[in-house]
Amino acid sequence: MSGNTIGRVFRLTTFGESHGSAIGGVIDGCPSGLDLDMDIINRDLTRRRAVDAPHSTTRFEADEPRFLSGVSGGKTTGAPIAFIVENRSYDPSAYSNLEGVYRPGHGDYAWHQKFGHFDHRGGGRYSARETVARVIAGSVARQLIGISGIEVQAWVSSIGKTTLSGYGSYESEAIESSVLRCPDKEASELMLQEIERARSAGDTLGGVISASVTGMVPGLGEPIFDKLEAELGKAMMSIPAVKGFEIGEGFQAARMTGSEHNDTFRKDMDNVIIDPANHSGGMLGGISTGSPVHFRVAFKPVSSIKQKQQSVTHAGEPATVDLSQGRHDVCVVPRAVVIVEAMTAIVLADMLLRNRCAKL
Amino acid sequence: MSGNTIGRVFRLTTFGESHGSAIGGVIDGCPSGLDLDMDIINRDLTRRRAVDAPHSTTRFEADEPRFLSGVSGGKTTGAPIAFIVENRSYDPSAYSNLEGVYRPGHGDYAWHQKFGHFDHRGGGRYSARETVARVIAGSVARQLIGISGIEVQAWVSSIGKTTLSGYGSYESEAIESSVLRCPDKEASELMLQEIERARSAGDTLGGVISASVTGMVPGLGEPIFDKLEAELGKAMMSIPAVKGFEIGEGFQAARMTGSEHNDTFRKDMDNVIIDPANHSGGMLGGISTGSPVHFRVAFKPVSSIKQKQQSVTHAGEPATVDLSQGRHDVCVVPRAVVIVEAMTAIVLADMLLRNRCAKL
Amino acid sequence: MSGNTIGRVFRLTTFGESHGSAIGGVIDGCPSGLDLDMDIINRDLTRRRAVDAPHSTTRFEADEPRFLSGVSGGKTTGAPIAFIVENRSYDPSAYSNLEGVYRPGHGDYAWHQKFGHFDHRGGGRYSARETVARVIAGSVARQLIGISGIEVQAWVSSIGKTTLSGYGSYESEAIESSVLRCPDKEASELMLQEIERARSAGDTLGGVISASVTGMVPGLGEPIFDKLEAELGKAMMSIPAVKGFEIGEGFQAARMTGSEHNDTFRKDMDNVIIDPANHSGGMLGGISTGSPVHFRVAFKPVSSIKQKQQSVTHAGEPATVDLSQGRHDVCVVPRAVVIVEAMTAIVLADMLLRNRCAKL
Amino acid sequence: MSGNTIGRVFRLTTFGESHGSAIGGVIDGCPSGLDLDMDIINRDLTRRRAVDAPHSTTRFEADEPRFLSGVSGGKTTGAPIAFIVENRSYDPSAYSNLEGVYRPGHGDYAWHQKFGHFDHRGGGRYSARETVARVIAGSVARQLIGISGIEVQAWVSSIGKTTLSGYGSYESEAIESSVLRCPDKEASELMLQEIERARSAGDTLGGVISASVTGMVPGLGEPIFDKLEAELGKAMMSIPAVKGFEIGEGFQAARMTGSEHNDTFRKDMDNVIIDPANHSGGMLGGISTGSPVHFRVAFKPVSSIKQKQQSVTHAGEPATVDLSQGRHDVCVVPRAVVIVEAMTAIVLADMLLRNRCAKL
Repeated sequence: MSGNTIGRVFRLTTFGESHGSAIGGVIDGCPSGLDLDMDIINRDLTRRRAVDAPHSTTRFEADEPRFLSGVSGGKTTGAPIAFIVENRSYDPSAYSNLEGVYRPGHGDYAWHQKFGHFDHRGGGRYSARETVARVIAGSVARQLIGISGIEVQAWVSSIGKTTLSGYGSYESEAIESSVLRCPDKEASELMLQEIERARSAGDTLGGVISASVTGMVPGLGEPIFDKLEAELGKAMMSIPAVKGFEIGEGFQAARMTGSEHNDTFRKDMDNVIIDPANHSGGMLGGISTGSPVHFRVAFKPVSSIKQKQQSVTHAGEPATVDLSQGRHDVCVVPRAVVIVEAMTAIVLADMLLRNRCAKL
Repeated sequence: MSGNTIGRVFRLTTFGESHGSAIGGVIDGCPSGLDLDMDIINRDLTRRRAVDAPHSTTRFEADEPRFLSGVSGGKTTGAPIAFIVENRSYDPSAYSNLEGVYRPGHGDYAWHQKFGHFDHRGGGRYSARETVARVIAGSVARQLIGISGIEVQAWVSSIGKTTLSGYGSYESEAIESSVLRCPDKEASELMLQEIERARSAGDTLGGVISASVTGMVPGLGEPIFDKLEAELGKAMMSIPAVKGFEIGEGFQAARMTGSEHNDTFRKDMDNVIIDPANHSGGMLGGISTGSPVHFRVAFKPVSSIKQKQQSVTHAGEPATVDLSQGRHDVCVVPRAVVIVEAMTAIVLADMLLRNRCAKL
Repeated sequence: MSGNTIGRVFRLTTFGESHGSAIGGVIDGCPSGLDLDMDIINRDLTRRRAVDAPHSTTRFEADEPRFLSGVSGGKTTGAPIAFIVENRSYDPSAYSNLEGVYRPGHGDYAWHQKFGHFDHRGGGRYSARETVARVIAGSVARQLIGISGIEVQAWVSSIGKTTLSGYGSYESEAIESSVLRCPDKEASELMLQEIERARSAGDTLGGVISASVTGMVPGLGEPIFDKLEAELGKAMMSIPAVKGFEIGEGFQAARMTGSEHNDTFRKDMDNVIIDPANHSGGMLGGISTGSPVHFRVAFKPVSSIKQKQQSVTHAGEPATVDLSQGRHDVCVVPRAVVIVEAMTAIVLADMLLRNRCAKL
Repeated sequence: MSGNTIGRVFRLTTFGESHGSAIGGVIDGCPSGLDLDMDIINRDLTRRRAVDAPHSTTRFEADEPRFLSGVSGGKTTGAPIAFIVENRSYDPSAYSNLEGVYRPGHGDYAWHQKFGHFDHRGGGRYSARETVARVIAGSVARQLIGISGIEVQAWVSSIGKTTLSGYGSYESEAIESSVLRCPDKEASELMLQEIERARSAGDTLGGVISASVTGMVPGLGEPIFDKLEAELGKAMMSIPAVKGFEIGEGFQAARMTGSEHNDTFRKDMDNVIIDPANHSGGMLGGISTGSPVHFRVAFKPVSSIKQKQQSVTHAGEPATVDLSQGRHDVCVVPRAVVIVEAMTAIVLADMLLRNRCAKL
């Protein structure tokens, strides 16, 4: 039973391969009456795109989405929203020397085991190219949750060995003005140096993306299995190259005492105020409290390195993998910021709609 | 839309509250013909139970499961497997002074926001008592995946500030002989000291559980959303008190280069061998490779501390929470080892069955 | 992948076998805050029960439901609602002569083919005993939709060769005062005569149940696959012994012209009025219009006849089936009226909640 | 929560409106390794298309499917299979006089109630145009189940007042050589006369489609809710204009006695033989027996009649509907034969895959 659909009420099904003619998706369950701003969608697609910078691939795709259904006069109709993006800038010749050899770190071997075949050209379905569909759907979801006042923002908080501590609070401007989407100028500079070192060694880097969701509606999350942290965790772990997820203090919480970690309540005017230290990351018992949602996502380094690697062919014969001719990112994390935001928005759109049935 | 079901083919729905008359679950989708060994189920339930040790609660429950359906002559029949466990040792008087006050770190406030009510006695549905049903279902799942040779083992790798590095390889005996389920004697001793310090301060601790799955079948995981790491991540993040999840190198992967992190392939006799360094934690592209699956789960410290805490009533009036009369764990992590194993087995049972439809 | 769950938002999972210790179900997704009247549930269970009448079995079960969770102080809490009913009056000796022989008309052979085993005692899971759980859940659903003003009523409109034409409009009193739940006294009398004839011949009868839903909310149904008629059709066809379903004019619509069948619209005061002829049965394009929902359900005759029947053993050897010692209904249709109502209420509860997400 | 997906393992999600730029679908869950014959798909699309005959619309669409993903070298890859068909022959001017008036028998009013808007041009999403996607997916499903030897065949058994009795056994040739897809020449002739009469009166007709599935695999169907008859019933009731469904004897079963209806078993050589009378229609207890599956589907007459009809505007003002300028079918049943086959194949493909997990 395949797994190309995410969400229960706001449901996204995606399709398409890196080397196919088009990729796309279908959103079923977006309520009718939502004004869709195509500029927001295009802005998000632009943020995912390759840039002219040391860390980025030089494979440029125009990524012009075509909406086939579910939108009329700029508004959603309640019918499924289908969209496609044609694949134009694909160069299969770059992969011609790879036929029949498993690339270390990629899904080739595992895919072959599962499906009895695999497509060496660009990783087929499991290429990061599929995230274009996530970004488009995420941009629709972002507009849906925006009506309730929810805003999602992510940024690069670590590349290689350079790390920002805590969650902080950053202006969108500060993030987007950095080519690496790291809002701290000094850290950004150090990260660029690390990237340059890796690039010249034919090597690659990973990193961490932090996210903050403000304007949160309390009550989102469906215990006991579909807790907010569980759904966010699944969504983030489904992004290519992600190896870790933590909410609030995360792994650091394991080193704290209860008296340090508990967020206390107090009264302020007529409102209940939760300790702004917000160690919990905005949720308790699997349900949002209304405090900002804070989490981090760890990305492994890009698997396509420009060094020769030992491997085997399908027939099990020793072989050498050489990816030096491909157009690969040195560090994909800056381009993944919008993907983290997209998956967050998709989860929150689903949770917001699911929550409509909690009470009589 | 509620979220008390997990899995697609091997599906568990649970029910019951800490203060209700019984808790239980229904497994729909377990194939017919599985020999169910009740001793294994009882052994797993015993591992979850409170013990006479400094870190543990003194609320003892016999936890005798009664199977109502789906099993005949010791074998599963293909019909849904329902089981219940009566709640016997429940003392509501311990909570009588809490009526109408939100406990910091617990789900009270969020639950109230979502459902318009909340039950102060034992946290109702969001108490860790619900994990009894997870352990029973997990023990059924463990037996199902055991037929394919898959074995799941978890242990305590960190409590407070004491940590074991790497994943290591431990004998079940070494884990279970430790009252803290930490297979390293020296570390176990240090952890006990930390627990004793926290206990005497009326405070609590968290920790990390590591897990290793051996005998893995390659091909498990359903990209692009239901990747193996995504389903494991969701399952772990749904366990009460969990704040982080990482697979393989996890957050450490974000600090490595591609040449360090990639697991290479080589040939050995007629088999393809993946580098035993296994940085990927046993999966590539969201699909198991056959290498051991390695992951870690971070638990926050227990929220019920024996110190007075600032809070508010439902009416928003300032109040003090005092939990000194309850029977709470100082550190729940050792008892959670079997819960991590259970959720792992449930995910793998589901993935093993889902994979039956991958190929013609 | 098993199929013991129905519904998407209001979801019922059932379990239990005729010969097991208990049967029951879990409702996940009932909103919090619903006042549950146990008298209504017990009344519905009584309506399903065997009666001292010619058409009925003499197996009497007390059918006392025990609610294990999800209800507190008479109100639903938003947590899953689990209930069980113990099986008390079970007499396996009545089946002892059947071991290893397939009963014609029952699921024995098909079940054996699917699961590799089958339970001759009372049909195990596929006995009509499982409908107890449907009735309990249906009674909860009935109370939920009642808040929106929706009322479900079914009655016997045909037994054997006696048939009421059209849908008519009947008082609950007229239906329930008939031992056969047929509101027409004359027809009821003829049906009883047919039943007596069948009974004395050791034979059995089927029949048709008609249903009418008033106070309908417009907008229920989720095209294009989960249309209201599609979900009702599935729910009805899942009831044991059901062989046909029709909405509105049903099969008769196939013989009408468009000008006969179309329901026109007119204005009355400030309201849009749909032609009360209501040929469509209350829905257009898969969505309720607000007109009464009308449908019919056809039941085959009871398979357990008291005549010797030709069959084979599991080993494929010729054998004779003799069910003359069992306690079987001659006609199950009057007892199935409440089951049709229950499944209708479950579908409508689900559709009512699903519709909460149709519009912004 | 929307309902544009059908199936659990073989899952089809469709999208697109009659007046939009394209319609299409995504099949997720088709196993890898299936040889897809595009000629079979095109043949099925041709069978759905309008023809130059008295009963048919004159809106001709080329209906050339473009497969975007999931197929490589003519084989399925295990990735989602997406396809689109561009809408070319759409003439919105035919609808210009309808703006703001509800058409009797169509979904306009109900859709408006649900979504807060509706599209008068061709019925938007709820037009029968969406069945193009069903036919394409059904043709993929047909090829998948064909590997197991399952063959699906449907035909017109009734139009207006002319009816074929029983299920019979017809050659594909006899069906397809009739412009009405009725395999009985005499009946076909009478039906054409009825159609001609209706057409000249500006009226329309409905009818019944019968279906027979041979080469059935025993064991298909997932009790107790996802029984084979329940899933088929839902699939058929989801087809536009369908008002009734019956399996085997269907409504006639309600008039039979148990001794008449039960299919007995006997031994023939080494096989168990079920009475070829096959009153049950090929399933018992919700599971296929291996006997042919027989069912009937009732279609109401086409709603778009060429007579003036009373109606109201959105504002509730009296209005007259005049559809005499549109290109509408007089009787859509012959074109729906392939749609019934498609939905049958989709259900059986899903059930065949679901059944892979029934046994250890």
